[in-house]
Amino acid sequence: MVPGAVDVPSGLPAAVDTPEPGDPRLARLSLNQATVKRWSLTQAVDGCLRAGLPAIGLWREPVAETGLAKAADLVRRSGLRVSSYCRGGFLTGGDRAAALEDNRRAVDEAAELGAPCLVMVVGGMPDGDRDLAGVRERMVEALAELVPYAVERGVRLALEPLHPVFCADRAVLSTLGQALDVAERFDAEAAGVVVDAYHVWWDPQVWIQIERAGAGGRIASFQACDWVVPLPADNLLGRGMVGDGHADVRGLRRAVDAAGYDGDIEVEIFNRQVWDADGDDVIATLVRRHVQHVL
Amino acid sequence: MVPGAVDVPSGLPAAVDTPEPGDPRLARLSLNQATVKRWSLTQAVDGCLRAGLPAIGLWREPVAETGLAKAADLVRRSGLRVSSYCRGGFLTGGDRAAALEDNRRAVDEAAELGAPCLVMVVGGMPDGDRDLAGVRERMVEALAELVPYAVERGVRLALEPLHPVFCADRAVLSTLGQALDVAERFDAEAAGVVVDAYHVWWDPQVWIQIERAGAGGRIASFQACDWVVPLPADNLLGRGMVGDGHADVRGLRRAVDAAGYDGDIEVEIFNRQVWDADGDDVIATLVRRHVQHVL
Repeated sequence: MVPGAVDVPSGLPAAVDTPEPGDPRLARLSLNQATVKRWSLTQAVDGCLRAGLPAIGLWREPVAETGLAKAADLVRRSGLRVSSYCRGGFLTGGDRAAALEDNRRAVDEAAELGAPCLVMVVGGMPDGDRDLAGVRERMVEALAELVPYAVERGVRLALEPLHPVFCADRAVLSTLGQALDVAERFDAEAAGVVVDAYHVWWDPQVWIQIERAGAGGRIASFQACDWVVPLPADNLLGRGMVGDGHADVRGLRRAVDAAGYDGDIEVEIFNRQVWDADGDDVIATLVRRHVQHVL
Repeated sequence: MVPGAVDVPSGLPAAVDTPEPGDPRLARLSLNQATVKRWSLTQAVDGCLRAGLPAIGLWREPVAETGLAKAADLVRRSGLRVSSYCRGGFLTGGDRAAALEDNRRAVDEAAELGAPCLVMVVGGMPDGDRDLAGVRERMVEALAELVPYAVERGVRLALEPLHPVFCADRAVLSTLGQALDVAERFDAEAAGVVVDAYHVWWDPQVWIQIERAGAGGRIASFQACDWVVPLPADNLLGRGMVGDGHADVRGLRRAVDAAGYDGDIEVEIFNRQVWDADGDDVIATLVRRHVQHVL
């Protein structure tokens, strides 16, 4: 069991039944590898199988550690769906050619792994830059160069709006509405959006933008994660287990479902406490939270 | 001179002329007291007069330390304009009656000090709450109770959207568009909005919302401050001197001006390095930055 504050939020019943493998409540639950950062790909795949999770979200770094061909074979033989591949992007720096080359490699990997989409964290602002509109425009230009390559390989680019706290340093794509404005410049098969509860929960426009995303067939991924306060010193690691914070993850899940999304619900949590816990316990906790707070 | 990173951004000329008192470039520059947190009200007033600043933004705590009547007299005799009074709000907790009573006192103080507006930081989400829409609705209800009292006393409520990083713990008002949606429920004389560069710079909608705010006569205050990375451990203290970060403060100033705003440009910086520096040096720095990066 994950220790301390991560596991037992106050006010919740201590005992919740944990669905066993085969339980229909697990049918859409995917483990994003970043949630069990210390596990190798083999360990993460085995963990999903033990718990009965049908899908996994993969990351480039652990895939590279395993080796791409071996990773693709491992995942294929496991029978797990690949819900997403993380991640491409970082297109806003000075060397666009190098960034695009790296993104083409990520597309190739996603194709070999059978991932339906490559999650794109588009990049922040270069040092000293104050022209946000200009950076955003260049980001779109770079995407436009990448799209045909991804389409040819059957990999959809999933544009992820990040919480505005990351606008300067990680992603100038800050709201779901803005992500849709960009995605809609391309075919729906070429570009979708990620709806990550952690990044969008605060947005007064999120409900109407989810409707818009669904109507256009643009929801490529739904990710579950919670906003906890106070934030830790490193903002990047401030994400909580669903149920520990203020994000209405169930409301967002209902909204994407109502908008026609029937894909995986991927749990992605960057949190040192979670990383330090036993992986099987982390999965058991997120399975319970899925039942309590997402379904 | 403020030491270290606060003072000299790379790439800028080291020597910039510092406007003297009487210089027309200072005509709209206001010192928000929070920028010189260690100074008493008397010291802050004297600092403004020495540097030739024509206006000051006041805070409740230092006013209370001086005593309201004495503070009002001090400011009146100084000839400084009061650009704003900080702050009311925090209306979303469990005890609305107490919050409203405290806000009525803040309105009374603003009136006695001759402040044109009371800046409202509306409050975050109660512990364990996930119903953001509900919290926002209750916030509007509480505002509606406060408005008539403020109108009677000639004090305008200036609704301040805070950066979404503060949505859970400080202000469920997260974008300028949302703040206008709320303000427009009341007369323009009763409710305006604050455009604070630090809070709105990232918003893809900010330009169109500034136009809307200006067209409706809703811009009650413009505040200058920069977004620097990396954020410090305490997010609240991560604000930079204008010119040190990624916010296009000049672009925002031009936009509010084009929208018809001709009020004060208030510099409000929560930053420990700035607080630790000599107050006169802080003012000299912000005066230079005003010329370099805002006008």
